[in-house]
Amino acid sequence: MDIVRLDQYGQVKFTLYGHGPRDVSVLMHAFDDVNSDELSDIYGKGEIIEAFQDKMAKLLGKPAAVFFPSGTMAQQIALRQWCDDVQSYKVAYHPLCHLEIHEQDGLKKLHPIKTVLIGQKNKLFTLDEVKSLGDDVKVLLIELPQREVGGLVPTYNELTAISAYCKEEGIKLHLDGARLLEVLPYYEKSAAEICALFDSVYMSFYKGIGSLAGAVLAGPEDFVESSKIWKRRYGGDLISLYPYIIPADYHYELRKDRFKDYYELARLLAYKLNQCPGIKTVPKIPQSNMFHTYINHPIEEVKEIFETVYKETDIGLVPMLRKTEDGTAMFEYAVGDLLGRLSAHQLDKFCMSLKTAMTDKEQ
Amino acid sequence: MDIVRLDQYGQVKFTLYGHGPRDVSVLMHAFDDVNSDELSDIYGKGEIIEAFQDKMAKLLGKPAAVFFPSGTMAQQIALRQWCDDVQSYKVAYHPLCHLEIHEQDGLKKLHPIKTVLIGQKNKLFTLDEVKSLGDDVKVLLIELPQREVGGLVPTYNELTAISAYCKEEGIKLHLDGARLLEVLPYYEKSAAEICALFDSVYMSFYKGIGSLAGAVLAGPEDFVESSKIWKRRYGGDLISLYPYIIPADYHYELRKDRFKDYYELARLLAYKLNQCPGIKTVPKIPQSNMFHTYINHPIEEVKEIFETVYKETDIGLVPMLRKTEDGTAMFEYAVGDLLGRLSAHQLDKFCMSLKTAMTDKEQ
Repeated sequence: MDIVRLDQYGQVKFTLYGHGPRDVSVLMHAFDDVNSDELSDIYGKGEIIEAFQDKMAKLLGKPAAVFFPSGTMAQQIALRQWCDDVQSYKVAYHPLCHLEIHEQDGLKKLHPIKTVLIGQKNKLFTLDEVKSLGDDVKVLLIELPQREVGGLVPTYNELTAISAYCKEEGIKLHLDGARLLEVLPYYEKSAAEICALFDSVYMSFYKGIGSLAGAVLAGPEDFVESSKIWKRRYGGDLISLYPYIIPADYHYELRKDRFKDYYELARLLAYKLNQCPGIKTVPKIPQSNMFHTYINHPIEEVKEIFETVYKETDIGLVPMLRKTEDGTAMFEYAVGDLLGRLSAHQLDKFCMSLKTAMTDKEQ
Repeated sequence: MDIVRLDQYGQVKFTLYGHGPRDVSVLMHAFDDVNSDELSDIYGKGEIIEAFQDKMAKLLGKPAAVFFPSGTMAQQIALRQWCDDVQSYKVAYHPLCHLEIHEQDGLKKLHPIKTVLIGQKNKLFTLDEVKSLGDDVKVLLIELPQREVGGLVPTYNELTAISAYCKEEGIKLHLDGARLLEVLPYYEKSAAEICALFDSVYMSFYKGIGSLAGAVLAGPEDFVESSKIWKRRYGGDLISLYPYIIPADYHYELRKDRFKDYYELARLLAYKLNQCPGIKTVPKIPQSNMFHTYINHPIEEVKEIFETVYKETDIGLVPMLRKTEDGTAMFEYAVGDLLGRLSAHQLDKFCMSLKTAMTDKEQ
């Protein structure tokens, strides 16, 4: 997908994208209050890693958890293990699943696994579509929220029905919960309550939590123990993972109670954007802290409008636009700390300016 | 292998193992002089990662290099690519190669690769043994120094002869240079001069360099470019690798000129240990900063002797002993910064105390 940078974003006083720049301070702040003689974890052992894994297992309501440098590694390993478990090497997931579009086919290149794409690109798959999978598909991945369709999630009823069906049919159900904390305010459930519907779950520390990198994979004891063997095979069992673990814990504690705010602000912002002629968010009412926004004009014109609004208001919403197939513009937006720092008055000023510009454009 | 801890090691004033404890200060010091607004690398792009990769490529005398979270990942990917290149999926290496004994068979579980063990466990393999490999073996790994046999290395002549033979026969030659800088004083060659004998090379940042984790893989441009694709497949293409890169660069700069000292001190210490009755180092004269030491008494008795010497001298050499197959003791020792901080007089005191204790034991 073509990317068009909005140069004006770098010039404004207030930027609204995520939690702020990914600079070295993100690491340095996390170590401010750490004792310098605290001992490193060593190849998966030691207080730092074990305590954090236990804490995450508890959060996710699973017997055990293991820290990984990346979700890519964690999820491939989860799926491989479930395939070994059920002795069937077909995994079903959404056509825009991270494993299908962002991992250079790692799952298929490193394992004897075939994948089955379920449902359509621009929507969630349904219980009926799960039911129509072949008998040889015994492993299913669900992503909550489904990032590439704007962060949509199934209703809790649909989710429990899919989970129950999988249990009946002996289908192992894995949760791509990269952004799990981001959907809890919508469901009004705890992480453990959502994870109880799945056999295993992965959660990321650099999406909504805003840390550096790293992920956790949680599930049954034996599943987690053998994940550690696969982690070594992949070269993920680093002698020291604390450079990611300490920041992950720091940022988890910093932000764990802010996800309701992110969610409400996402709904507010999406509402305001939808007031602008020619602008439409997907979903219309966000179900997490994120949504996609489509602007129905050629991307070059949208760039001009946005940069003018940024300049006029001294506020920048996103640093770039993406070109859609028909040449118009879209962007993904996920609420982080920055939006919450803006006053309601400022946000209104920005949206009014955008609305005026879009109204002029439409006429 | 059974491990016996020497509890007294934690009680003495002077410890001599490596560079010191692997605590959080190893990371924190590396960030002391870093500007907190320096931007993170993003998925392998950005100044921090690109500049360091270029620097390492130059050091190793190769067209390009890529930073990996681990050597395990880097080397499996190197070997897989050479196999694809020669269209033959047999790799030859030493029976105690890292890939054979420390990686839970990752290479064989993640790739359609078979391995051929060349030579004997307790010595280096030779040019003649390379010549006797089957015609279908077109990828060879050499480890310099060969850690599991005390850090032995072939002579430079033998090495060039093996390299020339491989070139003639179309065998791709990969260097496991986890401890590459550690052997340069013995060869009296630059890293680039040694690497010129190989098609690709991996070097680690947490062995002699003493950083946190991380590795570099260097070789031809296209080899390195496709390594990046495999790195993404493995889940090693982290959004931020700077928590390892900045410390790797810091510790490389800190220690790059100390390897000659480590080497000379290893020779001195081995010489002194060999003066003690019942103690023998392998090799007798170290060829790098490391060697193995065998103490010809039951491990329980050796533990007692060592702990007494530690207490008497307030100096601790190693924190643990390993049990050999015949129940006696051995340890691996690699010279780092700590040994250099000890005065010659203190080192002598330690070795004399050990010699006296061993002499008493032998009588």
